[in-house]
Amino acid sequence: MSTLGKVYLIGAGPGAQDLMTLRGARLLAQADVVLHDALVTPEMLELCPQAEKILVGKRCGQLSTAQQFINKQLVDHARKVPLVVRLKGGDPMLFGRADEELRALEEAGIEVEVVPGITTALAAAAATKQPLTKRGVSRSVAFFTSSTAPEHSEEDGMPDSDTLIQYMGGREAIATAQRLLAHGRRPDTPVVVIENVSRPEQHIRRLTIAALAHGLGEAHGPVLVMIGDAMQARSHQQLESRISDAIERQLRA
Amino acid sequence: MSTLGKVYLIGAGPGAQDLMTLRGARLLAQADVVLHDALVTPEMLELCPQAEKILVGKRCGQLSTAQQFINKQLVDHARKVPLVVRLKGGDPMLFGRADEELRALEEAGIEVEVVPGITTALAAAAATKQPLTKRGVSRSVAFFTSSTAPEHSEEDGMPDSDTLIQYMGGREAIATAQRLLAHGRRPDTPVVVIENVSRPEQHIRRLTIAALAHGLGEAHGPVLVMIGDAMQARSHQQLESRISDAIERQLRA
Repeated sequence: MSTLGKVYLIGAGPGAQDLMTLRGARLLAQADVVLHDALVTPEMLELCPQAEKILVGKRCGQLSTAQQFINKQLVDHARKVPLVVRLKGGDPMLFGRADEELRALEEAGIEVEVVPGITTALAAAAATKQPLTKRGVSRSVAFFTSSTAPEHSEEDGMPDSDTLIQYMGGREAIATAQRLLAHGRRPDTPVVVIENVSRPEQHIRRLTIAALAHGLGEAHGPVLVMIGDAMQARSHQQLESRISDAIERQLRA
Repeated sequence: MSTLGKVYLIGAGPGAQDLMTLRGARLLAQADVVLHDALVTPEMLELCPQAEKILVGKRCGQLSTAQQFINKQLVDHARKVPLVVRLKGGDPMLFGRADEELRALEEAGIEVEVVPGITTALAAAAATKQPLTKRGVSRSVAFFTSSTAPEHSEEDGMPDSDTLIQYMGGREAIATAQRLLAHGRRPDTPVVVIENVSRPEQHIRRLTIAALAHGLGEAHGPVLVMIGDAMQARSHQQLESRISDAIERQLRA
């Protein structure tokens, strides 16, 4: 057992290098091998210049490396070197299939530790200055994704919460908006769509559920969709731009 | 306008100093004034030895400093010094009343930026190695607290999601368990209760909804309650301890 390495599942956060935790940065600087997702940015990998870097990620549902093969690589590397990092976009414990990797490592008798990361929704809330909860307006928030469990029916795939955050919510967010309208949410419920959170190409759009139900337009890179009254813009300026966007969308629709 | 300082709302994370982000640590090292919550640990404040540190926090519902007074202090300090940090436990945009502080600063014409932090639930998932979502088991997670909106009725205060995370879930978690049982969740649905996440006095308990409905026992410090099938322990050893705990609780009840 003493000759086995240790594996750290580390959350890389949304992309900006300085949204890594101090703990994650220290471990990255000591790592022998770093297995990372496609969502991990090149600037993040600058934190581990000494390490052997291996791209193992899946992106946008495309299974570029099967999960079982990732598990096997983690185990194999931990048998060869002292410090292996599995670097995952966002936080490893949220939509990260960490359970399968933890299980494989534990079954192989390899020590594993998890270092949390800034999940995209919180980076998006910070970037847009839009809190996910608000006193008297929104006291709960649910994170979900449509791609993690295709076997779920349309009905039970939808959590109920004041604020709703859909990860990887590209085209699927349109169906979400349609279902929310069908369930009686106000058509003017505000929506914030954010792409490439924390990165130079970050892009923020403000609309309504009614507008989202008609389409999302073009989106590049990872998309996060935030829905609920907590997304109401604070300033009149923001409000005006939101309304004009909505009118523009309605005219185009 | 050019003589006004800038305010950063920074998430301190759950307590451990090295769970601060690189960005947050850099700003703390440059801050003139740091206004912090009672939940912010002394080791975190070691990141800003040069700054004037002011305790403004509320703790466990006790209103030690009214929100309006905190808002006023933020504005007043930003009119005097270039870099003011508002350091909040966890993440500022989740159960942090950030909206009121952002509004006050924006109305005063003061520039403000938000730096996300590791929210307690993700630190707890990492510490317990218990992912919040699992393929085929749990595809959504809701965060809520019973103390943010007392005006809500019992019924609509409860979000619906595969995994449920109750912040500041001390005694209120008992009512949550009772309501979940009434709504038909399986009595043996696993629960993880974690106190003082990431701190030396961290304490983890594994039980079931049925056991939680009977009581939580003693709790010291901030308590997070995580409920759902994703909380099922992976190893047989963990499973056995969970079952024996549940039996012990039933016998004591």
